[in-house]
Amino acid sequence: MTHKIAVLPGDGIGPEIVAEAVKVLNALDLDLELQSAPVGGAAYAAHGHPLPEATLKLAMESDAVLFGAVGDWKYDTLERHLRPEQAILGLRKHMGLFANFRPAICYKELTHASSLKPELVAGLDILIIRELTGDIYFGQPRGRRVATDGHFPGAEEAFDTMRYSKPEIERIAHVAFQAARKRGKKVTSVDKANVLETFQFWKDVVTEVGQQYPDVALDHMYVDNAAMQLVKEPKRFDVVVTGNMFGDILSDEASMLTGSIGMLPSASLNDKKQGLYEPSHGSAPDIAGKGIANPLATILSAAMLLRFSLGLEDAAQKIEAAVQKVLADGLRTPDIYSEGTTKVSTREMGDAVVAAL
Amino acid sequence: MTHKIAVLPGDGIGPEIVAEAVKVLNALDLDLELQSAPVGGAAYAAHGHPLPEATLKLAMESDAVLFGAVGDWKYDTLERHLRPEQAILGLRKHMGLFANFRPAICYKELTHASSLKPELVAGLDILIIRELTGDIYFGQPRGRRVATDGHFPGAEEAFDTMRYSKPEIERIAHVAFQAARKRGKKVTSVDKANVLETFQFWKDVVTEVGQQYPDVALDHMYVDNAAMQLVKEPKRFDVVVTGNMFGDILSDEASMLTGSIGMLPSASLNDKKQGLYEPSHGSAPDIAGKGIANPLATILSAAMLLRFSLGLEDAAQKIEAAVQKVLADGLRTPDIYSEGTTKVSTREMGDAVVAAL
Ligand SMILES: CC(C)[C@H](C(=O)O)[C@@H](O)C(=O)O
Ligand SMILES: CC(C)[C@H](C(=O)O)[C@@H](O)C(=O)O
Repeated sequence: MTHKIAVLPGDGIGPEIVAEAVKVLNALDLDLELQSAPVGGAAYAAHGHPLPEATLKLAMESDAVLFGAVGDWKYDTLERHLRPEQAILGLRKHMGLFANFRPAICYKELTHASSLKPELVAGLDILIIRELTGDIYFGQPRGRRVATDGHFPGAEEAFDTMRYSKPEIERIAHVAFQAARKRGKKVTSVDKANVLETFQFWKDVVTEVGQQYPDVALDHMYVDNAAMQLVKEPKRFDVVVTGNMFGDILSDEASMLTGSIGMLPSASLNDKKQGLYEPSHGSAPDIAGKGIANPLATILSAAMLLRFSLGLEDAAQKIEAAVQKVLADGLRTPDIYSEGTTKVSTREMGDAVVAAL
Repeated sequence: MTHKIAVLPGDGIGPEIVAEAVKVLNALDLDLELQSAPVGGAAYAAHGHPLPEATLKLAMESDAVLFGAVGDWKYDTLERHLRPEQAILGLRKHMGLFANFRPAICYKELTHASSLKPELVAGLDILIIRELTGDIYFGQPRGRRVATDGHFPGAEEAFDTMRYSKPEIERIAHVAFQAARKRGKKVTSVDKANVLETFQFWKDVVTEVGQQYPDVALDHMYVDNAAMQLVKEPKRFDVVVTGNMFGDILSDEASMLTGSIGMLPSASLNDKKQGLYEPSHGSAPDIAGKGIANPLATILSAAMLLRFSLGLEDAAQKIEAAVQKVLADGLRTPDIYSEGTTKVSTREMGDAVVAAL
């Protein structure tokens, strides 16, 4: 059976890093049908919209999407609905990609690259599971209006709606508990139940779901405390589950802690195992086209794609082993370079992974 | 003229640390009238409410409030409106304390205590200014209901409202620009304009206010990126201004980065310079009553109180110099102890500050 993969390179370094991941996929001799389409600023430039109909259709009809990155300063002045990031929000919404997996792993070879002291991050392996289609990202109503109450009635105000329904919380909680079962058997649910109705409800529902997983330890933490504990003692975490907004902040904080952000993949799945796979880092327009971007996060995202959406565990492991090997061999793109290692370009890194397969 | 100060010790280590700050204030021979009242869990236990009428009245009629900390696990099962943290939310709301100052400073003597590598935090001095009476903390409507749209119409859902009006943003922006003028002349406004209507508006209004401060550099950063940059390169920041929710998360992250959280004061002011002053750390019920809590953040909060609410700059500086001296003399409570320094109790630390005045 042929697996269909939509390849959406996007902006900035997106095309360069995706090209290397495609090279790796093609080298595996699997039955894949890869088809590319423009997305983000590149799509706006070519077709007047960051997520053209044809791109969305291709993604919806594929088994999985390999995504680069979107965004570039040149699109910053566009109206919001035309800006590059609307593409990623649109894909999440239309494909129903509610479960975002963001591993924060500190690679042995890169421990020194972390901002944190080595003893705090050596061996770090956290999995942040972020709900991705609810919360204040998509809640209605939102907009601008004249305030009728509050501190300044009569003044112009802007507003958004935070919300979670019970089934939305239940399904992401199940994802988290099931993931924890395969790892350290611990889930930390992050909320702000002391202030928000939405997250008191979140906490209640996660607690209820947790009763079905007596083998998994569950604790609850306020988001402000979680932001602190990630800095103070990151290894205390195993699986962290939280909402869309808090997950956006905490997963970025956690990935930066590792010193390995150029290495961290991510997966966003729906209930049919269709998924979108992208590196955790951004489009880095400042280094685009220079051949110095690190393609490993994207290559590892391709491995996750094979595992989660196509069920090709062996092939996924092959890629991961190859990445381990190039690291052990001392190959480094500039972002992870240190004395005594060998500096390579984006393309050389991709070639080395292919050679190591 | 006698200055009236309401003293609200609260729960956990609150009473111990506040006692030391009061000792320091009393040693200064100023014309102060200090009056204590229960707050938080202690007030609930004594009077059935975390913010009794009499406590609120005392606070409202004072020039400033010296606050310890609230919260204890024993009150976790109370209904939300009776929980200790409602006291602090109620004081902010009723006193109109919209401007929260949270310095994140890395003390020279404590650089080694940071989770971050010393070169990243040595000399760190950030001021986070958090809006404290708006945003999703107080927005209406909020509650539970049956969803009428979204992914699961008909399901139970919880919701909250995020909102900011123009004058609310303007006044906190002015506070930030004016503070920056006295420091590094740089303001970073943190938003999530790429997703939220509220924070697109925030960004627009802060930009507009910024035009009145051509001598202050203004930049804008998304909250997820800010959470990363705080870890990666904290010294790039001078003054950070943001909303209530993002400020809650980022100020805690930043204070933990410094390794000095036991040393960091905070101030929350209204437009009449009335203020509430409290340490940045929490009530730490696990160490309450053991005499090992660090009173310095509370003592430094008392210094801020003298400066901001009473205009007693000289007295404030005296306290700050005394704290510098005890640190230089090598005195340390257990939280900041390291080899070669002298371990002291909460009370001994307070006494040492008094002696150094
Ligand atoms: C680009 C932006 C809309 C997006 C988000 O906030 O979800 C990004 O920060 C992410 O985490 O993928
Ligand atoms: C206790 C809680 C309501 C409070 C907040 O979220 O503002 C606390 O975290 C703080 O930062 O003072």
